[in-house]
Amino acid sequence: MTDFFKGIPAIRHEGPDSDNEFAFRHYNPDEIVLGKRMEDHLRFAVAYWHSFAWPGNDPFGGQTFERPWFGDSMDLARLKADVAFEMFDILNVPFFCFHDADVRPEGASFAESRRNLEEIVDYFARKMETSRTRLLWGTANLFSHRRFMAGAATNPDPDLFAYAAATVKTCMDATHKLGGENYVLWGGREGYETLLNTDLARERQHYGRFLSMVVEYKHRIGFKGTILIEPKPQEPSKHQYDYDVATVYGFLKEFGLENEVKVNIEQGHAILAGHSFEHEIATAASLGIFGSIDMNRNDYQSGWDTDQFPDNVPEMARAYYEILKAGGFTTGGTNFDAKLRRQSLDPEDLILAHVGAMDVCARALKAAAALLEDGSLERARADRYAGWDRPEAQAMLKSSLDEIAARVESEGIDPQPRSGRQERLENLWNRFV
Amino acid sequence: MTDFFKGIPAIRHEGPDSDNEFAFRHYNPDEIVLGKRMEDHLRFAVAYWHSFAWPGNDPFGGQTFERPWFGDSMDLARLKADVAFEMFDILNVPFFCFHDADVRPEGASFAESRRNLEEIVDYFARKMETSRTRLLWGTANLFSHRRFMAGAATNPDPDLFAYAAATVKTCMDATHKLGGENYVLWGGREGYETLLNTDLARERQHYGRFLSMVVEYKHRIGFKGTILIEPKPQEPSKHQYDYDVATVYGFLKEFGLENEVKVNIEQGHAILAGHSFEHEIATAASLGIFGSIDMNRNDYQSGWDTDQFPDNVPEMARAYYEILKAGGFTTGGTNFDAKLRRQSLDPEDLILAHVGAMDVCARALKAAAALLEDGSLERARADRYAGWDRPEAQAMLKSSLDEIAARVESEGIDPQPRSGRQERLENLWNRFV
Amino acid sequence: MTDFFKGIPAIRHEGPDSDNEFAFRHYNPDEIVLGKRMEDHLRFAVAYWHSFAWPGNDPFGGQTFERPWFGDSMDLARLKADVAFEMFDILNVPFFCFHDADVRPEGASFAESRRNLEEIVDYFARKMETSRTRLLWGTANLFSHRRFMAGAATNPDPDLFAYAAATVKTCMDATHKLGGENYVLWGGREGYETLLNTDLARERQHYGRFLSMVVEYKHRIGFKGTILIEPKPQEPSKHQYDYDVATVYGFLKEFGLENEVKVNIEQGHAILAGHSFEHEIATAASLGIFGSIDMNRNDYQSGWDTDQFPDNVPEMARAYYEILKAGGFTTGGTNFDAKLRRQSLDPEDLILAHVGAMDVCARALKAAAALLEDGSLERARADRYAGWDRPEAQAMLKSSLDEIAARVESEGIDPQPRSGRQERLENLWNRFV
Amino acid sequence: MTDFFKGIPAIRHEGPDSDNEFAFRHYNPDEIVLGKRMEDHLRFAVAYWHSFAWPGNDPFGGQTFERPWFGDSMDLARLKADVAFEMFDILNVPFFCFHDADVRPEGASFAESRRNLEEIVDYFARKMETSRTRLLWGTANLFSHRRFMAGAATNPDPDLFAYAAATVKTCMDATHKLGGENYVLWGGREGYETLLNTDLARERQHYGRFLSMVVEYKHRIGFKGTILIEPKPQEPSKHQYDYDVATVYGFLKEFGLENEVKVNIEQGHAILAGHSFEHEIATAASLGIFGSIDMNRNDYQSGWDTDQFPDNVPEMARAYYEILKAGGFTTGGTNFDAKLRRQSLDPEDLILAHVGAMDVCARALKAAAALLEDGSLERARADRYAGWDRPEAQAMLKSSLDEIAARVESEGIDPQPRSGRQERLENLWNRFV
Ligand SMILES: [Co+2]
Ligand SMILES: [Co+2]
Ligand SMILES: [Co+2]
Ligand SMILES: [Co+2]
Ligand SMILES: [Co+2]
Ligand SMILES: [Co+2]
Ligand SMILES: [Co+2]
Ligand SMILES: [Co+2]
Repeated sequence: MTDFFKGIPAIRHEGPDSDNEFAFRHYNPDEIVLGKRMEDHLRFAVAYWHSFAWPGNDPFGGQTFERPWFGDSMDLARLKADVAFEMFDILNVPFFCFHDADVRPEGASFAESRRNLEEIVDYFARKMETSRTRLLWGTANLFSHRRFMAGAATNPDPDLFAYAAATVKTCMDATHKLGGENYVLWGGREGYETLLNTDLARERQHYGRFLSMVVEYKHRIGFKGTILIEPKPQEPSKHQYDYDVATVYGFLKEFGLENEVKVNIEQGHAILAGHSFEHEIATAASLGIFGSIDMNRNDYQSGWDTDQFPDNVPEMARAYYEILKAGGFTTGGTNFDAKLRRQSLDPEDLILAHVGAMDVCARALKAAAALLEDGSLERARADRYAGWDRPEAQAMLKSSLDEIAARVESEGIDPQPRSGRQERLENLWNRFV
Repeated sequence: MTDFFKGIPAIRHEGPDSDNEFAFRHYNPDEIVLGKRMEDHLRFAVAYWHSFAWPGNDPFGGQTFERPWFGDSMDLARLKADVAFEMFDILNVPFFCFHDADVRPEGASFAESRRNLEEIVDYFARKMETSRTRLLWGTANLFSHRRFMAGAATNPDPDLFAYAAATVKTCMDATHKLGGENYVLWGGREGYETLLNTDLARERQHYGRFLSMVVEYKHRIGFKGTILIEPKPQEPSKHQYDYDVATVYGFLKEFGLENEVKVNIEQGHAILAGHSFEHEIATAASLGIFGSIDMNRNDYQSGWDTDQFPDNVPEMARAYYEILKAGGFTTGGTNFDAKLRRQSLDPEDLILAHVGAMDVCARALKAAAALLEDGSLERARADRYAGWDRPEAQAMLKSSLDEIAARVESEGIDPQPRSGRQERLENLWNRFV
Repeated sequence: MTDFFKGIPAIRHEGPDSDNEFAFRHYNPDEIVLGKRMEDHLRFAVAYWHSFAWPGNDPFGGQTFERPWFGDSMDLARLKADVAFEMFDILNVPFFCFHDADVRPEGASFAESRRNLEEIVDYFARKMETSRTRLLWGTANLFSHRRFMAGAATNPDPDLFAYAAATVKTCMDATHKLGGENYVLWGGREGYETLLNTDLARERQHYGRFLSMVVEYKHRIGFKGTILIEPKPQEPSKHQYDYDVATVYGFLKEFGLENEVKVNIEQGHAILAGHSFEHEIATAASLGIFGSIDMNRNDYQSGWDTDQFPDNVPEMARAYYEILKAGGFTTGGTNFDAKLRRQSLDPEDLILAHVGAMDVCARALKAAAALLEDGSLERARADRYAGWDRPEAQAMLKSSLDEIAARVESEGIDPQPRSGRQERLENLWNRFV
Repeated sequence: MTDFFKGIPAIRHEGPDSDNEFAFRHYNPDEIVLGKRMEDHLRFAVAYWHSFAWPGNDPFGGQTFERPWFGDSMDLARLKADVAFEMFDILNVPFFCFHDADVRPEGASFAESRRNLEEIVDYFARKMETSRTRLLWGTANLFSHRRFMAGAATNPDPDLFAYAAATVKTCMDATHKLGGENYVLWGGREGYETLLNTDLARERQHYGRFLSMVVEYKHRIGFKGTILIEPKPQEPSKHQYDYDVATVYGFLKEFGLENEVKVNIEQGHAILAGHSFEHEIATAASLGIFGSIDMNRNDYQSGWDTDQFPDNVPEMARAYYEILKAGGFTTGGTNFDAKLRRQSLDPEDLILAHVGAMDVCARALKAAAALLEDGSLERARADRYAGWDRPEAQAMLKSSLDEIAARVESEGIDPQPRSGRQERLENLWNRFV
């Protein structure tokens, strides 16, 4: 036991009336929602990077956090792991997620970096023997080091492509070894700063081939988890190729990967792309590529990714409603890709940010489940399209413009608009959230 | 001859030093640029709607323009056509574009609306016998009338789908009859106001089938032009299905239409979707679906589509550079989907807005052509990726993650970043614009 | 009685468990919150324009609503008033608001428009004898008619300034006669489309003088209500002079009006200006110019003013928390400057949009009141600044840079950052909303 | 001489046809524009921070630049200064700007940091004896170190206020000693992350008092330069108090400082606040508080401050047109608060980024000057408002709403709108840029 969280108790469910800061008021892992344990619905994961590796910097300021594990040695990496698993226990979260660069010091060579990772993976494996927290997903950091400044799979230098490919292999191996349920790719540097020096067509071909190799390697090693792409429109790049769910879908179709790869959708990234979170989830579900979520809110007045812990229950309920409607998570889950505000210096802040976020998600899930169970919203939706259930309507879809045009004239079709009832449905919604 | 443009002369090229407001200083149709007449490069089109049908309203105010042809009779529709063709002559533009609703009064029934359109199409055909202005594209207005408030192809009412299909057939017939070189679909209402009442999956299936019918009908009637979708992310809808070029590509792939349909890209819509205009053009070109452009600028401080005439030469040069690099227009062209500011009341304003915009485009084209001819930028781009031309690099693309990883370790690959030289390329660019 | 709302009952409070669409579940006018009736806290007002005058158009489509009172005669204006007051009764709202142009047909001359207004004002006065609904504020529409296209007080034509001044006088008279509690100015056209034709300094001088005349006239006629400016950053203009609360404050200071004029803050306008609603309220309160609110939500993915009915309780609670902290409304209130979605065609939609919005506000108010009563948040805030309560800190504010610098060195001051506890406060917040 | 810029020649003017990358094509210091040397118009300054202190990091990646002077010793600080002055010579710039933190290592105490600064200031002073480059402005970095995380003047901890005040005193002393022409304050942390823990009113009072102390100290030490505030709406804070020019004006009026303090306007900050650069300049000029500019462009698709070197001549011409119209700079100048893209690793990139930017500004200045000299635009502007020059119009401004209303009726005033001629003025503009 480290003493980082000294005095902080394990968090227990105490119900909505508790005023104990160190308790869940809504998240109750064993409570049954729509026939399933709440924990199995939400599948919470802690993100190693923001919670344990981020120093609190922003574009105009440096480190604010002073963590005893900051530094570059293997000993400090193990200390970091110890603290991380202590937090997993305190929160009783079923999952965590990590990048290679979060958990091991960079080595002097690729081989040394790999060995460092393997050593930490072994350390994780031993810790997981006594912890109930499993790995939701692993991933490779292909964006922080200066070598990746011009992209990974889309780098103009083929040696860098090689370095990135080798890194991903290593991280897939680590994920596989730890029983990870997914493997995620976020292409933070797969994009461009200026079109003037960029060959879009060539970079996309390389990117497609890279992703195909990932899929091939997954099958070769027998990894049963899901390969996930995390879309983001921009930042740090001016333009990121995995702009949003629809863009990723087109990319997967171009390379024939739409049945092999799904998406990990982040609220903040949805917002930056001009969408709502629920839009991205619903779009992915309708295209058959919904995988997992990063549940961190964006700030609507900030034009960059703020990665804050979620705090708005009605908004989060929109997300879980779409997820439940799509059948819930399979291998995916709710990863908090959220970081403390850089002024939140205390160990308590780190714990309580997660506690509050878990409660927000739990309330959102329960509200969404209740509305889905009630059925009123889905009945209203079905009613609106009921005309399409008629055989004539289906037959029309198989006909042609000129047949339809002839019928419009012969039958004098003059369609009358019907109310979309948006406000009434919003009122209905508000009865549940 | 109407007297609307009384006293306004035909616009002639007088060269850059002219201070005659009613002259081109840069647009010179017969000037040869990269081996082709400038007119044949730019292929300018006047948009009937903004220039002749728009009353000057905005969300907080009504009509400002008082045009003698405003009203709902066939006589006024013919007067409008007379004035339009007079303007085409004054500007000496090779093309125009129109929606059905711009050119004919709405009838009491679908059949009457169709007959009204046919009558005006005949009137156009007669005018085109003596005019040199041809039809760049036709399109159907499936968004202004209240019947379309909940979508056209994606409407919850199958009768409305039928009405929309019949309307498109009619407009395709009109376009075909007038020798149009393209047919455009802009899905202004194909989207949603709230997810609460929307069935995304069902609407997309209907939309895909609708577009397939359009392609089938094109082939049936022997229309040789290009079918174009015009992407826009939103406005008037909260979300529009044809969000941007990448989204449209995914949609075309889903329905197997990627070889049948291309895109008409509008600057303002690119901006609203979070992209630059040149990004959308370059993306479309790299995906093989570039078709045509709507050349109207957006205002970077306004969050809606301002559809202003272009006025920034360097920005427009970025667009034409990508177009020239992609081989130039085939059936497409430069449509001014731009409207006067609503305070620009005078006939002179209407003419001079086009004159200025044509000059801006001409300057942009010449600058882009000169840089392309110079070759420095393309050489720098090719150099940046030269490593990929090596056989080992191409071989790597055919290999696998584990082979690559083995090589990274065995060869001790440690890629060193090279300058992206962005500012130097921007300086180069600025030598030409 | 008209039959427009036939079959729609008066809305009564039935409590949170009611599933009656036509009931309040949270709004209970007589319920006591922080020692005051809920109705007296919220002071709801219906906006005449969106609810009775707006035809459902948007920039890409025309009228969708078909109201029996649409048209330009005095008879129709009276029918409209009848329906409006029936709705006020159904909703049991204490207030309404209107522009001149909402309630009377435009006349052929200024004098005729004035007489039309006076006639309707008399009609309102008679209706108010038997209604409990009073006037929260009146205002002049100085933006819809083409004469105002280039501004009202800031118009380049002094005759237009005169016309606008005369219009405002008329509307102030009407407001005074009907016992209005405030008079509002929204400068939708006070701004510019392009700096190229604009004299910023001159326009601001005219605008300042115009507002001074309004204040002078208020005192002359003995109007005891508050003069309010409603800030908005843009739309319809590219730039609007009353950009946001801070801008309006500077403008008032420039003309010495900061004790005479307050602000009416709209959520949607706050968002467009890059602020949160609560920021604008808190800023106005801290500057002593908080007056009233327009409670309509914006859509975070739309770059224009969507003027939707509020539906997010936690967001609205932020607003009411700031209002309660500032002491609540005096002459101000909660005006729904919100319009139905244009697809919401039915009379029921109009009623239920208001019902839902009133419930959302009531929940938000109660949550805010409970947190304020609890005191934890204000205690945490006070604690954070407690150092400033010390006499030395106050003395320092009266000293100088060099005295302070000397002390920093002599005392070796080395301030240590303390946690801002943002997430813990967000958790606290979420215990109440 | 260091060897950092080895092989890079001093940059000379060679005229527009030169294809020498290491030459000015447009910037010619001695060329006379509107009766003044171009150098004296533009008053270029190099920003020490971006060019010499920034390591190339962004929110998702670390250092990319490897400069021999990176590190924390006084020797390295002197090496940095040597290289900086070599660049000033190569570019032949008349000015530079710096923060304390850019030029000296942080000490173990305030006193040590101060001594470090003084030592470097002496070193600068000696270098300036043989260099022609002077100091445009100095400033204090009150945002990077963790101690400033919760603000400087607006910090909840009075000790931090003291530390900040002492720091500013030190930097004002340094600026005064080096003959700086201005002193700038940018309040990057003067704002908030969440309203929940913020006392807006108290923080603003402290901020106002802090600024007053700065002004008092300026007078005490006889500093003749201008005190400048640099507005920015947000980033790194969620909300920054110095949001934009209009907000700063209101703040200055509140504390009676409007004749003591002016603004330093940055293009990127204007864009983030929802304005154009020229809007902010024109607004400041019309309010009498225009001081200086930071000439770095923003990216219209990125929601954060990209601080790129300017590359769009027509946009920059808008800025210089407003500056020239306002009489040009007095103590202010054109500071390049612009940084290389982080992929631009080479010393050549650093030089050529400045060279290109200086040429862009020179072209913009010449275009603006030519249009101003031509006079057509100003004549058109004056004509538009000519009605206000009439005595009756001026008399009206001294009258009252009721007198005006009486006259509107008696004279039957019915103002007719006149064209705003926006497109014609844009065409005129484009004849000069
Ligand atoms: Co993110
Ligand atoms: Co994420
Ligand atoms: Co458009
Ligand atoms: Co268009
Ligand atoms: Co509004
Ligand atoms: Co409003
Ligand atoms: Co900046
Ligand atoms: Co700056």
